[in-house]
Amino acid sequence: MSDDQLPNISLRDFQELIREMYFEKDEARGVDGTFMWLMEEVGELASALRDGTHEQRVEEFADVLAWLTTIANVVDVDLSLAITQKYGSGCPGCGQLVCCCPDEGKP
Amino acid sequence: MSDDQLPNISLRDFQELIREMYFEKDEARGVDGTFMWLMEEVGELASALRDGTHEQRVEEFADVLAWLTTIANVVDVDLSLAITQKYGSGCPGCGQLVCCCPDEGKP
Repeated sequence: MSDDQLPNISLRDFQELIREMYFEKDEARGVDGTFMWLMEEVGELASALRDGTHEQRVEEFADVLAWLTTIANVVDVDLSLAITQKYGSGCPGCGQLVCCCPDEGKP
Repeated sequence: MSDDQLPNISLRDFQELIREMYFEKDEARGVDGTFMWLMEEVGELASALRDGTHEQRVEEFADVLAWLTTIANVVDVDLSLAITQKYGSGCPGCGQLVCCCPDEGKP
């Protein structure tokens, strides 16, 4: 698939989609229980990264992102705003677009 | 901030931004080391969810999303394509836009 054929969903639209799909259940389950599901998916991602196929990795990234988004919905965090605030002006560590923080530090 | 003033970054643009900012370091560090950073941020998110302020939660969501994205870059997974494939046609469990999977199952 060439780049211009790839889907290009906005993070807000995705967060809204996940809200529509799962919010009622997410809110009833609450943060703690939802976080447990996120952790399960993180484990599956680790497994796919270690010895999964590309397609399995794709699927696990989607799941982790969906569960992260679902928790953001429960606590009313706008992910698009969050990343724009933190990363929209360059690396939060060094302020550069191409990070030049020391390798040993948190990049 | 009203909804139409909120930033609306696409997931692909965000992934590209993170690639530009960190890819050289991410690739040198590799998946395992990068996954450790993701886990550290997941821990900080858990802490912020438990007793952090809204602003701290916002920041930790941004960091988890950035580290997840950075790993996706290292293993060449397009997050936008991943979520469109998995969630673009409704809940992967029940196929409905508003999930109606049994509560006890993985939603």
